Amino acid sequence: MNSTIRLVGISGSLRKKSYNTILLNAVKELLPAEVTLELLSIDGLPLYNGDFDIPDVTQRPAAVVDFRNGLEHADGLIIVSPEYNYSIPGGLKNAIDWASRGTDSPIIQKPVALMGVTPGLWGTVRMQLAFQPVFQALGMQQTKPEILVSQAKAKFDTEGKLTDEDTRKLIIKQLLSLKEQIIKMRS
Amino acid sequence: MNSTIRLVGISGSLRKKSYNTILLNAVKELLPAEVTLELLSIDGLPLYNGDFDIPDVTQRPAAVVDFRNGLEHADGLIIVSPEYNYSIPGGLKNAIDWASRGTDSPIIQKPVALMGVTPGLWGTVRMQLAFQPVFQALGMQQTKPEILVSQAKAKFDTEGKLTDEDTRKLIIKQLLSLKEQIIKMRS
Repeated sequence: MNSTIRLVGISGSLRKKSYNTILLNAVKELLPAEVTLELLSIDGLPLYNGDFDIPDVTQRPAAVVDFRNGLEHADGLIIVSPEYNYSIPGGLKNAIDWASRGTDSPIIQKPVALMGVTPGLWGTVRMQLAFQPVFQALGMQQTKPEILVSQAKAKFDTEGKLTDEDTRKLIIKQLLSLKEQIIKMRS
Repeated sequence: MNSTIRLVGISGSLRKKSYNTILLNAVKELLPAEVTLELLSIDGLPLYNGDFDIPDVTQRPAAVVDFRNGLEHADGLIIVSPEYNYSIPGGLKNAIDWASRGTDSPIIQKPVALMGVTPGLWGTVRMQLAFQPVFQALGMQQTKPEILVSQAKAKFDTEGKLTDEDTRKLIIKQLLSLKEQIIKMRS
């Protein structure tokens, strides 16, 4: 039996210099032992259309099949996202919608760690609040503590390394909690 | 001065036989006097990417420019949408995100009527709840009463005509309220 824990990480932003994508990359060096992280892009997904999903799953677009395949073997998810209009970015929610349907959904019941970064204050608190009903709908248990990173500029160096010690500690705590939850679910 | 009130209607579903799109079309025969309704599709919009939006608005994709142009002369919006995973469909939120940014946003501060249809019970109540912070972010005042249409099959005939008398009355009330709000804002 393979004891390695596989996480899949998704950024909610498509911007090249997105602080959220930078944070997702920075998480790689904070992973607990025997935990791997693979990044999966939401870019290239079409807009959700039920006619090409359920009930005829053979109609799913190739990009959707690839995206769902990328999630299939994940033990848990890391989602790092900005807040758009006090809520979840539409593109990210669109990816969740594509992954959510069918008895073969690759995200239902999986544990998830949620993070967000903002240049200013508040650290995506309203985006994270908007995720609560979505996680509830999908039976996805969210790991504590929540990670809200405000005033991003002061927290990273010019290479995108997360230099803020408090934030690093919180993320390590969140990832350990995610790992423990996954181990508990396995046994 | 043109006294006609122009509404733009958006369906949150891309499915061909979507009850929400059927309802949006059925609304056409319930419009108050001197109110027009034009439908605008969210299909064909790319996923939101800040690199192609703000601050360099000349980078906006053609489909986004068209979509924003379609909203520009609207006095108010009608949004009719399903509920996906206890929240707003990602594709619809994506359209809102594209329309929301910049000092030239064509939706900010505009009044909006929200409706939703479900085949079963509840009538998209959680989708409508998820819209509250979004409307707040955009200063969009939502018109009462809310329209939640449950058990859709019993409410339309086979031609897609809305036959349920109570629902028709509620929608007429909502549209009149939207009209009044627009007139108030003009004066």
